Amino acid sequence: MQSRRQRLAEALDQAGAQAFLAHHRPNQLYFLDHPDPSTVISRGNCHAILFSAEQTVAFPGIWISNACRDLLTNCEVIPCELGDPSPAEQLEAYLKKAGLKKLLSDQLAPQIPGTQVVVEDVGSTLRRRKDERDLALMREAARISDLGMSTAFKAVRPGLTTLEVVAEGTAAMLRAGAEYAVMNPAVGIGTYYLDSGEDPRRVIREGDMLFIDMAAYVHGYLGDMTRAAIVGEGTPQQRELLATVHQAYRTGSQAMVPGAEGRKIYQSVVDCYAAKGWAKYFVHHLSHGLGLGGDRPAINRESGDVLEAGDALSCEPGIYVPGVGGARVENMIYVSEKGPEELTKCPIVPQMGF
Amino acid sequence: MQSRRQRLAEALDQAGAQAFLAHHRPNQLYFLDHPDPSTVISRGNCHAILFSAEQTVAFPGIWISNACRDLLTNCEVIPCELGDPSPAEQLEAYLKKAGLKKLLSDQLAPQIPGTQVVVEDVGSTLRRRKDERDLALMREAARISDLGMSTAFKAVRPGLTTLEVVAEGTAAMLRAGAEYAVMNPAVGIGTYYLDSGEDPRRVIREGDMLFIDMAAYVHGYLGDMTRAAIVGEGTPQQRELLATVHQAYRTGSQAMVPGAEGRKIYQSVVDCYAAKGWAKYFVHHLSHGLGLGGDRPAINRESGDVLEAGDALSCEPGIYVPGVGGARVENMIYVSEKGPEELTKCPIVPQMGF
Repeated sequence: MQSRRQRLAEALDQAGAQAFLAHHRPNQLYFLDHPDPSTVISRGNCHAILFSAEQTVAFPGIWISNACRDLLTNCEVIPCELGDPSPAEQLEAYLKKAGLKKLLSDQLAPQIPGTQVVVEDVGSTLRRRKDERDLALMREAARISDLGMSTAFKAVRPGLTTLEVVAEGTAAMLRAGAEYAVMNPAVGIGTYYLDSGEDPRRVIREGDMLFIDMAAYVHGYLGDMTRAAIVGEGTPQQRELLATVHQAYRTGSQAMVPGAEGRKIYQSVVDCYAAKGWAKYFVHHLSHGLGLGGDRPAINRESGDVLEAGDALSCEPGIYVPGVGGARVENMIYVSEKGPEELTKCPIVPQMGF
Repeated sequence: MQSRRQRLAEALDQAGAQAFLAHHRPNQLYFLDHPDPSTVISRGNCHAILFSAEQTVAFPGIWISNACRDLLTNCEVIPCELGDPSPAEQLEAYLKKAGLKKLLSDQLAPQIPGTQVVVEDVGSTLRRRKDERDLALMREAARISDLGMSTAFKAVRPGLTTLEVVAEGTAAMLRAGAEYAVMNPAVGIGTYYLDSGEDPRRVIREGDMLFIDMAAYVHGYLGDMTRAAIVGEGTPQQRELLATVHQAYRTGSQAMVPGAEGRKIYQSVVDCYAAKGWAKYFVHHLSHGLGLGGDRPAINRESGDVLEAGDALSCEPGIYVPGVGGARVENMIYVSEKGPEELTKCPIVPQMGF
């Protein structure tokens, strides 16, 4: 595959534009020429970066101005010190002088006399098809997520709170190199409350259903997975619910091949639940894109993209049945030419520590 | 002090309004009649709650609809199941029938024929003066933050990464009952990069400056503090920088008394730095309000509220000097009738573990 900047140059050429103005951090990280740009643009503190075929010009906020100046190579950095005009003002002044004919921008940008500014997120479009660097870092994000989830489940014992459990998983991910790691547990008879209604300080009891979702960032890439389990044997109904979610996951994920229509994949998961009379309890999306953020494709009730080779997305068919319980399983999937590859390696039912 | 709902009823009465429409989670948590509303409205998933003198009506999204129905008492809950109209649509229909003359709302709300809708965040205004429940939970948030920070600093040793250090502090806060806990470390010769420019996977070395900021949520209340230190002896310049930040902190925090003007407090901190020729390196706010979120008062370069008894706010006079290093100290302050009370108890220089 061509380099990211070559692909951008071609896309600009096709659009008759001379530059791309990236306000969104994922686009900034994607095109910067730096071995680990997430350590420089550590959060959303860079107002904008202007990428053209030959040039990169950054307009950082005051919090990261020094870092950008010292650490970014092959990049002109407009300084922002106390008392300087804001990065937005500096950008506008810069563009007025630059005399571009046409500029693509990933969000609403100032009107510049003589320059046609078009809001078109060419960054997001180019980021969809993962390249080797994407894949290597997504594998690392998945590996660290696996480690966190396995560690959390190993800590599960009746008598502990869910927070004591996710403390172990979160710490494992940070120690392994995630720059951000948060786990969201739901436990109890009421896991059909989804992300609420359960005191996170609640003590885990035998017979509870438990699921843990998470978000970890590794070099800017999202690690994201969910695991569900019954604490102890559980009831036949609970076991049926969990088995149905596993079946729905297999059905959905195996259908993630190049050319597949998202809305058909969604329907195949709904059908799994409908066979049990539970279709109305699958209330959320099936898939969101994965990568540096704001990624396509998406699959939900309202819309489903057609999958392409090189896509990366979640598969997370949760179900939440009042009176029974709730469960969600989520893996990170890479859509290769040959079909779906699970980036997540953690067993679908992780081992518990009792 | 009167109950929160009594105070709201009086404020509505004064405004000639019959109800307050709360879209923001802090306002929802503040007025709900529930022992721990943060476990029901666990995130921003409740579209709106309508509070009047006699009534509470919740319009939850589908993710927390079951939880609101089962767990909220003295509250009418409009159900949201798959296929139902959206909470926004249900709210609009409800208001059209309710026939209120005047409604206050904390954000832009739909136009209702016959009802005057005024955007006025009376919730934020009433939340400013902390009551006993606020204070008890803010003390708990501060206690858990103290524990996390002390634990992290005890883990500091040359040879570890900053992530290994904050893993220990983060886990301690989760085990102690924080529903969310994140620590942001900056370390190295370049801590003047503020929140960036430092690889979080960087190995700590003797002679580094290190500071750790954090955010923890405890029953919805923010725990927030920062500590800075030199790893080992450091240089005379580093020690002078750290001592100056401590002096600036004492100057700023001791001035936080009822009636004090924020802009004068800000200037007193600038003066501490100006005495060393470093005024231009104090680039951020001094204080933000504390509580359930979006709290007043604020003190920054552009504006400073006049402090009132019952205020709670941060005091965080950081400074970042190229070629020397950076440091920030942040405590949670409660402004009592008698003067500033530090809710944060952790020593200003926490003990390191080597």
